[in-house]
Parts: sequence; C-alpha cells; structure tokens
Amino acid sequence: METRSSSLRVSLPAFVLIFEAVIVALYAVFVTYDEHADARLQNNHTNPMDNAVYRDYPIFTDIQVMIFLGFGCLLAFFRLYGFSGMVFNFLTATFAIQWAILVQGYFQFSHDGKIHLGVNNLINAEFACAVVLISCGAVLGKTSPLQLLVMALLEVPVFAATEWAVLKYLKINDAGGSILIHLFACYFGLGVTFVLYRPQLNDGHAKETTSYQSDMLSVMGTLFLWVFWPSFNSALTLKGDDQHRAILHTFIGLSASTLTAFALSAMLNKSGKLTMADIQNVTLAGGVTVGASVDMMISPAAAYALGILGCTACMLGYKYLSPFLARRFRIQDQCGIHNLHGLTGLISCAAGICAILVASEEVYGPSLYEIFTHRAPVEGDPRLRELQLLIPGLRPGLGRTAQEQALFQVAAVFSTIGVSALGGVATGFILKLPFLAPPSDDFCFDDKLFFDVPPDYDTPLKLQLLRVVNESD
Amino acid sequence: METRSSSLRVSLPAFVLIFEAVIVALYAVFVTYDEHADARLQNNHTNPMDNAVYRDYPIFTDIQVMIFLGFGCLLAFFRLYGFSGMVFNFLTATFAIQWAILVQGYFQFSHDGKIHLGVNNLINAEFACAVVLISCGAVLGKTSPLQLLVMALLEVPVFAATEWAVLKYLKINDAGGSILIHLFACYFGLGVTFVLYRPQLNDGHAKETTSYQSDMLSVMGTLFLWVFWPSFNSALTLKGDDQHRAILHTFIGLSASTLTAFALSAMLNKSGKLTMADIQNVTLAGGVTVGASVDMMISPAAAYALGILGCTACMLGYKYLSPFLARRFRIQDQCGIHNLHGLTGLISCAAGICAILVASEEVYGPSLYEIFTHRAPVEGDPRLRELQLLIPGLRPGLGRTAQEQALFQVAAVFSTIGVSALGGVATGFILKLPFLAPPSDDFCFDDKLFFDVPPDYDTPLKLQLLRVVNESD
Amino acid sequence: METRSSSLRVSLPAFVLIFEAVIVALYAVFVTYDEHADARLQNNHTNPMDNAVYRDYPIFTDIQVMIFLGFGCLLAFFRLYGFSGMVFNFLTATFAIQWAILVQGYFQFSHDGKIHLGVNNLINAEFACAVVLISCGAVLGKTSPLQLLVMALLEVPVFAATEWAVLKYLKINDAGGSILIHLFACYFGLGVTFVLYRPQLNDGHAKETTSYQSDMLSVMGTLFLWVFWPSFNSALTLKGDDQHRAILHTFIGLSASTLTAFALSAMLNKSGKLTMADIQNVTLAGGVTVGASVDMMISPAAAYALGILGCTACMLGYKYLSPFLARRFRIQDQCGIHNLHGLTGLISCAAGICAILVASEEVYGPSLYEIFTHRAPVEGDPRLRELQLLIPGLRPGLGRTAQEQALFQVAAVFSTIGVSALGGVATGFILKLPFLAPPSDDFCFDDKLFFDVPPDYDTPLKLQLLRVVNESD
Repeated sequence: METRSSSLRVSLPAFVLIFEAVIVALYAVFVTYDEHADARLQNNHTNPMDNAVYRDYPIFTDIQVMIFLGFGCLLAFFRLYGFSGMVFNFLTATFAIQWAILVQGYFQFSHDGKIHLGVNNLINAEFACAVVLISCGAVLGKTSPLQLLVMALLEVPVFAATEWAVLKYLKINDAGGSILIHLFACYFGLGVTFVLYRPQLNDGHAKETTSYQSDMLSVMGTLFLWVFWPSFNSALTLKGDDQHRAILHTFIGLSASTLTAFALSAMLNKSGKLTMADIQNVTLAGGVTVGASVDMMISPAAAYALGILGCTACMLGYKYLSPFLARRFRIQDQCGIHNLHGLTGLISCAAGICAILVASEEVYGPSLYEIFTHRAPVEGDPRLRELQLLIPGLRPGLGRTAQEQALFQVAAVFSTIGVSALGGVATGFILKLPFLAPPSDDFCFDDKLFFDVPPDYDTPLKLQLLRVVNESD
Repeated sequence: METRSSSLRVSLPAFVLIFEAVIVALYAVFVTYDEHADARLQNNHTNPMDNAVYRDYPIFTDIQVMIFLGFGCLLAFFRLYGFSGMVFNFLTATFAIQWAILVQGYFQFSHDGKIHLGVNNLINAEFACAVVLISCGAVLGKTSPLQLLVMALLEVPVFAATEWAVLKYLKINDAGGSILIHLFACYFGLGVTFVLYRPQLNDGHAKETTSYQSDMLSVMGTLFLWVFWPSFNSALTLKGDDQHRAILHTFIGLSASTLTAFALSAMLNKSGKLTMADIQNVTLAGGVTVGASVDMMISPAAAYALGILGCTACMLGYKYLSPFLARRFRIQDQCGIHNLHGLTGLISCAAGICAILVASEEVYGPSLYEIFTHRAPVEGDPRLRELQLLIPGLRPGLGRTAQEQALFQVAAVFSTIGVSALGGVATGFILKLPFLAPPSDDFCFDDKLFFDVPPDYDTPLKLQLLRVVNESD
Repeated sequence: METRSSSLRVSLPAFVLIFEAVIVALYAVFVTYDEHADARLQNNHTNPMDNAVYRDYPIFTDIQVMIFLGFGCLLAFFRLYGFSGMVFNFLTATFAIQWAILVQGYFQFSHDGKIHLGVNNLINAEFACAVVLISCGAVLGKTSPLQLLVMALLEVPVFAATEWAVLKYLKINDAGGSILIHLFACYFGLGVTFVLYRPQLNDGHAKETTSYQSDMLSVMGTLFLWVFWPSFNSALTLKGDDQHRAILHTFIGLSASTLTAFALSAMLNKSGKLTMADIQNVTLAGGVTVGASVDMMISPAAAYALGILGCTACMLGYKYLSPFLARRFRIQDQCGIHNLHGLTGLISCAAGICAILVASEEVYGPSLYEIFTHRAPVEGDPRLRELQLLIPGLRPGLGRTAQEQALFQVAAVFSTIGVSALGGVATGFILKLPFLAPPSDDFCFDDKLFFDVPPDYDTPLKLQLLRVVNESD
C-alpha cells in the first residue's frame, strides 16, 4: 500500500509557493537587466544586431533542448517510472535554473548591488542545472519530488561557490566543464546516494526494468544530447577558432565513443547481443572525455583517442565498478553517473593537464596567451608589450609556466572532488528528514506513488501475464 | 458501426486538389520573390551575409519545431486518437500556412500588384497557422479532417483581415501576440465549438482517456513548445535589446508558471498526486501571460509574477470554469483553450496596458519612441528633431500619450474578441454542412474512423481486460 | 531458433576496433585543422566572429537532427524492429561520417599532404552519411549491423569518388543534391537489394507490421526531416539570395507534397482512410523534387507544382511500381527508396534541366554567372571584364551555353546512375560473405536477433491474443 505520507498535497505546494515568493522578492530587489537588455543603455552608437543575444541565444536553445528533452527522455527509461523520469526532470530543471540565476548572479554577475541579467546568465544557469540533473541521476527512482527540489536548493549554492572560488583563486582552464560540471556533479551525487543507501535494493527490484517503448524513448534522449553536445562543450570557450575546435573535438570524441560502445556492448554480452542501456549511456562518454581540453590544439586524432579511452573506462565501470561500489561502499549509483561523468571526467582532466604541459607558442602562435590567459606575462613585463603588438587586446596574465598551470589544474580537481563529496553527504543527511516523504523501498521506481496514472498503467500481474504469454511462445 | 459517410475517398481529395489548383494558379499570377530572395535585385553593393534570411531563418525553424512537433505531440494525448492528433495537426498546419502566405500577402506584403515572398512571410504565416491550431484545440476529437481544413480556410482570412485592421487603424503594441494570436484564436475556437455542441459528450466519453505512452508523448510536445517559446514571443519584436528582453521575460514567465503548475496540481488533487494534463498544459501559461508586454521594461520580477498569475488563472479555469462553460453555456472546450489562451491572454493584455501606462523616458531612455512608435512626436513637432539627434532613424509617430495608447489597446481587445467570436460562430454553422462528414458521437476520439490502424490498436474490450487484470492486482 | 552465427560477440568488435585503429592512425598522420580552426593561423587581423563556424554550425546542427533523430525515428516503424531501426541508424551514421571525413577529405579538402578539417567538412560528411542511410533503407530489416557497416565502408568511397569526378569534370548544378545524393543513394541501394534478393519475402512476412506506437514514432521522424529539410537543401548553395530561395522553394515544395499525399492516400485506399506509411514517406517527396533547381529563379508556383508532381509520382510508385519491381525484377525495396528518392530525383533533374535552359540574364541579372558559374565567359573574353565591373569578384567560367550546361547535367544523371547501380551490385556480392551474419528469413524484422529485449517485447502469440480480443470486439 502507498503510505499516507507520500501525498504531495501540502508539502509540495507549501515548499514551491514559499520558494516562489522568496524568488520574486529577491528578483524585485536585486535583479535588473544587463547592458544588452536594458533599453536605457542603448544609444545612437548601438547597432541592434551587435547585441549579445545573437551570439548567445542559439547556444542557449541548443542547451535547452539538451536539458529538457535530452535529459527528460533519457531518464524515462524505467518501465513504470517514465512519468517521473521525464516530469521530475522538468520540475527540477526549472527550479534549479531560476535559483541559479540568483545564486550565480550573486557570485559572478553582480555589481552596484544588482544582478545584471541577460541570456548569458541563463546559459550559466543551465550549466548549474545540468550539474543538479547529473547528480540526481544517482538517486533516480528513490526520491520524492520534494527531496529533488531540496537537493537542488542545496546543490546550486555549493556549486556556484565552488565554481566562483576555483575560477577566481585557482584560475583553471576547463572549457567543457570536466572539472566543474562533471566531477562536481558526480561526487556530489555519490555523496547523496551514499547517505540514502537502501540495502534491500542491492538485490534488484521488481520494477527496476525497462519496456520496449521506454528504451526507445531513452535512446531518443541520448540522440538529443549527442546532437547538441558540441554546443554544450563550446558554449563558454573563446569565440572564433577556439569555439570551432571545441565543436570539432566534441563531435569526433562522441563519434569515437559511439562506435566503441557498440563494439564493447556486443563483446561483453554473453550471447553477443547489444544492450540498450549501453547505447543509451556509454555512447555519450566521449563528450565528457574531451571536455577539459576541448578548445586546445590537441589534434583531431587525440580527440578520437580520448573518445575511445573514455568510452572503454565508462563501459568497464558499468560492468564491474558500479556493482562493486554498491556492495562494498554502499554507493548505489542508479544511472551510473560515476562511469559516465566521474571516470570520464578524471580521464578528461588528465588529458587536459597533458595538453597544458605540451602547449607551446610553436603550435598556438601568440594566441597561446589568449587560451591560457594565466600564462600571459604579467603587467610590466616587456614580453607583454611585444605580444600586444601581435594581439592588440591581450590582457596581462600571471606569467604562469605550463607546469604551474598544470599544478593548479590538479589542485582544482582535488578540491572540487572534496567539496562536492562533502556537500553531497551533508545534503544526503538533510534529505533524510522525514517530512520530505521518500518513497518506501516497495514504491521505488513507481509512478503510481506521485501521479494519477492512466488505466493501461502496467502492473506486476499484467507483466506476469505477458511473461506467461511470451514464454509459451 | 462506422457510417458510410466517414469515408474520405472522394471528399478529401476533391477538396484538397481543387484547393491546390487554385493555390498554384494564384501563386503563379501573384507571388514573386521579395528583395532579399530575388537574384535580379542583387547588385555589387549587396553583401550576401546581410540578407534577411540570416536574421529570420533561425527563428523560423524554431517556430516550425513548435508547430509541427510541439503541437503535434501535445495534441496526441488521447489513447485512441494519437494518429489523428498528430497527423491532422500536420495536415491543418501545412494547409493553413500556404493559405496564409496568400491571404496575409494580400493584406500586408503586396505592392505593384504582387505579393513579395521571403522567409519573413513564412514566419507571419506560421503565426496565422498557430491561430488555427489553437482554435482547433477546442474541437479536438470531434471533427473530420475535412471540417478542420474548412475551418482553416475560413479562419485564416478572418484572422488576416483583423490583424491588418487592428495594426493599421488601432496601431497597438502586441509583440507576443496576446491579443491578435491568443485571444483571437481562443474566441474563434469557442465560437466554433458553441455551434458544434454535442450534449451527449457532457457526460464523458469512453474513449476520452489517455494512455501511458500518449501522456508521455504529449509531455514531449509540451517540452518542445516550452523550449522554443522565447523564439515565438520575440520573433516580431524590434531587434536588439527589445528582442533580448522578450527572450528573458518569456523564459522567466514560463519557469514561474511551470513551478506554480506543479504546486497547484498537487494541491488541487484529492490524493495529492500530480495530474499529467496539468503538466502538459498549465505549465505553458506563463508564455502567453507575458506576451503583450514581453518587449517592455517590465522588470524580471514582473515577468515572474505574471507567470505565477497566469498559471493560477489557467489552473482554476481547467478545474472550475471549463466544466461550468460546458454545462451552462454549451461551450465544450476540449483542450481548454479558454484557460491556456483566453484567461491568460486577458491577464496579459491587462498587464500590457499597465506597462504602457507607466512607461516613461526615465526608464526607456529615448528608445521609448521606438518601442511605442505611436507615442513618437508627429512630423513637424520640434521635439521630434531633438529625438532624432539621439536616435537618428526615428520615424515620426502620432504623438499619442500613454493613456491614449492604453485606450487603443482596450479597443483592440474588445474588437478582436468580438470579430473572432462572431467569425467562429459563423464558421461553426458552415462546418455543420453534412458533406463535411463529422464523426458520430460514438466515433469521436477514435482513429479508426479515418485511419487504417495497426493490429495492436486498442479496443474497449482490451482495455476492459487490462482493467480486470489491474484490479485483480 | 536463432542461429549461433548471429552473435555479434566477436565479429562486430573485431571489425569496429580494427576500423577505429586505422582511423585514428590515418587521422594522426593526415588530418589537421583548417584555417578557421587552427590557432596558429589567427593573427591580429582576424575577427573571431567572422570565423566560418558561425556560418556553418547552425546548418550543421539542423542536419544532425535530421540524420540522428529524423532518420532514426522514421526507420523505427516496424513493430518488432524499433531498436534496430533507430539504433543501427545511429551506428551506421556515426561510422559513415568519420569515414567520409577521411575519404572526402582526400578528394576535396587535401593540400600539402594534409586533410584540413573544419565544420564545413562535417557538413559534407553528413551528406555522404545521408547517402548511405538512404541506401540502407532498401535493405532495412534484412541485414546484420555488420553488413550495414561494410556497406557504408564501401559506399562512402564510391560516392566520394563519383561526387568528386562529376563536380570536377562535368561541373554541374545540383544544389539540393538530387543527382549526387538522391539518385546515387537510390540506385546504389537498389543494386545492393537486387543481389540480396530473398524470394520468400515477396509473400509478406509475419513480422513486417507496424504497431500503434511505432507508427507514431515514425511520423515524428518524418516531422523532424520535414522541419529541417530547408537547411539540408540550402546547405551548399551560394550565400545570400540563393540560399534564401532554396529555403523558400523547399518549404513550398514540401507543403505542396504534404497536402497532395493526404489527398492521394485517401483516394487510393479502398475504404477511403488514410494510410500511415503514406504520411510517413510520401509527404516528404517535395523536398527531393525541388532539389536540383532549388536555388534557381524557378518561381514559387513552379516549386509548388514540383511538390505536387513529385508526390504523385512517389505515391503511384509505392502503390504500383514497388510490388512490380519486387516480383519481376527481384528488387525488394523495403522502404521504397526508389519512390521517395529515385522517381522524385529524376523529376527533379528534369526540372533542373528545364530551369537551366530557360535561365537568362533578364531574370537573374548579372548574378546569372554566379549561380551558373560555368556559363561565365572564359578568361580573356572582354565580356568577362564588363561583368566584373558589375560583380567585382566574378570568376572566369567555361563560357558554356545553357544547352551545353543542360547536356552536362544529362551526362551527370546517367553516369551517376550507372556508377551507383554497379557499385551497389558489387557491394551486394560482398555483403553475401557468410561471416557477415545476415539474418535468416525468419528473423528478418526482428530485434531479438541482435538485442537483449525487455520482458514486454512483443511475440506472435501476444499479437494473436490481441487479435482475438480485438475481433471479439
């Protein structure tokens, strides 16, 4: 039986409406338009077509499709949890974005006591949202919508603060977000699921299965993510050749990991068949693996090799590491985010560090100091003058050597993992508060708990009937 | 039994092929390329990359996705009417667009006896098409494809004439189309359904249910609309900061209405569960509500508040107003367009009027007279000269005060509602002509009437079997 | 029973991993960045926003959606072959693109011993990929994934060589790819299926049916293709008014063929109902038919007429020609590519030739010699000087007359058909090699052979049960 406490009738509206009241008040007091959206700041020298919206908006819609349709469909892979997979993603994403606008706005986009809003902020907020959605993958099917919202409420500030601190103090290169997005999201999610450990689920769950339609829908989600991933990885690079390379590398990396995933899926299957879960997830590993070096001159072949490498690690992770983590370390990683975002993220960071160590003016020309800003000579260095003759707008840097930059990358990796894992564990304890209405073990992976379901909603008995029918075939 | 008269074998081909013959003849005589598409009008001062196609085409594809995939999936929510929902949308949309190219072309894009065609016309035609599709929502499941085409044939000219008259004589601000698109479409559709009243359907219909898959597909439609709605609302604004604000406000309004929809859906459900129909429809209310003021300096907080307000009205409309209208006023509004487009449209118009009343040079700077063109000083006014020093291209206006502009907005609201409701009623009477083959009450919401269905097509008995199976669970 | 040989456990990984090793080696040796993606080639005169990526990338993502989501969903129309339809498309497409980058790179984008890579190459590779996917439509359901990969491995070089030779030696106009993409793909595919003839399948196959959900998904695929087809047809035109016209003509052609398809579908159906297969395929005929003349000044009415004409030929082809070809000529064209790409392609070529014959300076102005480059006067002709005063950058041509150009188009049509049919037949013989594991007749159209299927996967008995239930209705 469903428990009385699973009703959302009071808790969800109370939480959401209070949140909205707070948000609208904070927006009213602190949020104003940025200089590209404010009518008063336009003058007779403004060319409307130079507005940043024309540079940012196409990237923004691509990422929107990834967030709402890509993640939404991908997470609807359970037979009896399709509504929840797709709809809670919708809920959590909209919640996280509007919260991130404020929190990131405070850290990154505020001056004169105001947060200045433009489409650029929305892109950044979508990244914060992606972090939350990835983390949620670890606990898919085992959380109430209220728990997901509280998780987003807590994760967004921890993420925004980490992002701000790492970028401000460690000053790293991370165009595709391998460190700040994928590693952060992964270890935060693992922290949460560690605390929410459900021993009974280690033996499998009757409802933890897919259906023919849910598998198809989930592949569609994969394809949405696959198609637009180059936009995701190149959204925050420098414009021009840097963004161009980011697009090429992401495409090549994804292509390589897709082929590899098919090969390994057949190879690791006892009867030599393909497994849909591999197609849905492992094909995407290359997009993460090229992330940290996505805008660098790593060569197309290296992007290809990274795709193969990331995919292999990801596949082996699903096959061997995830069951091991669940049994030995109480880490039940439902969607395998540690494989798709953690292992690949670590490989990506390593590759990024190698790319930084070998980066030279020979390969990059003087634009080396644009991509690796912190390697540019310091203010006053005569070398800066020379470079500024070649690249007029070049800003003084910190004069870091390649080795120094690499060390800062390493520091960023470890501090991000540390903060996110701790944040996740702390969040997990808060999510255990009883009024957040977690589903009982029996009602995990079941839409019926939180949705009015249509009459053809599957039931164990129907499935049993189908099994009898199938077996008698 | 299906009646003999439901066969489309003669009527549909006859209607369509005659229509196509007329269209191709009219295109041949009247339609030519506009100055951005005509090879002869290019000269050695033409920069190909300045062609309007690069400004208009991205917006056009976004709206295409909304029309064909967004509406198509959203309207496929009935268990036994998915083919019809998605496919009749495809048919009606292509029909309406090519008809609107001619009709709007006559009113808005003709000179020298020719209609001048470019992607810009296609965007306008897609808006006319959206109007038709919204209206069709009122009679979904109760009309033959022939009736839908006749409805489009009649609605497009009434819409194009109203649009032209309101813009030419009343000269209003309506960037997001709250008045001309949403209110027009809503009251036209209600007029049609009023005449096509089917008393027996007030007590529910056995086939008027969803299935697990159809609910999922419909949510995907919602997500397509959600993701690209900022393009829809900003397609016809001024370029630059105006379009930028339109995108921001639409996104914020939708986010607010989505959260509110989840809260209210749980709150108004007896067992505190979420209702898929709310997720599919009410989440979108914010997109309409911000429409009339979408490009104005209303502040992000106001866009947020409008999203909450519109969503609340829409939700209460579905819950209480729609059943009331059906029983008392013979208005059977199948998809609840009065809630999603009517109530929200009225709120949007009211908000637009408030925004107009408080608009001042202090907030907008001199660009006030670009957004509110009709408030610009008249030709000859010395103030115009001054302003033209600040904004070189500023065109003389009508010297309207804010109050005058507001009154014209009010006039536009009432005249649009009046014309559309009357047009809808008249169209309804024409749709009752017997050779348009309306389905009998029994065959409403049933694909079998107009489609060859595959062997697994559901039947009441199968459903009954599933119910037995489910209940014995 | 499934045969032992259908296992992919050794063959697929071996083939894919060897291919990847070769690719990564060739990439390492031969592939470098093009001038828009190479950091070293940027200097202080480079404006990042002038990078070709901003012109090419939006078109690229549109075509990506067509390839992966459009084709993927469209080909998932079989009830028991949805996984294969969507997922083998994913596999074949990623394989073909990365192979085409190399092969086309060798023919078209290499200098100084290197292939120069940019997003522009990816667009071209996607066209090669589209060719492969269209050809695969002829043998859908009757091939193992390994056969599909071998087919792609062989077709890409034949295509790339033909494309290169036709463009270099015959110098034709074919903006929408009617000759090089659609005719090539069609006759290659027919050649393959001719050799892979399976007599038993002429009498129908128990699994060769659709389901309600698979039909819906397939229509979604159609809609993705429909919406983005203008991007496909205009990707390789000249920028500016040419691209603008290509978009307009494609949209108009598709609209006309969609309406016509609905009319003919009802007309040719015994009970006057619509057939989903027609909606899924025939609606798209107009996109192909306008291809060869898509950038010319053919007038909107002519684009409309071409849409009607192509759709009619395509529909009659499905109805009468396909069964005839299968019985008499051993050509089993599973998806009817001869109707959707062959017949329409031929009509398109004929229309293109007519458009070339009537093209005059009166209609095009001096830009006639930009669209029809080979009609421009030869170097040294005084007429060239005059024209260069009007169009500064005009390059000398071959001084061809309209008639000459038309003859070259004819030569291109016949040589493309010849080469592709021969290439297809040869490929077919290679695909018969036993270790490529073709499915037995019984296991055609069946996911179970190559996938781990979920418990609700349909079986004949279940279908039988549903039929009994349905009939007792």
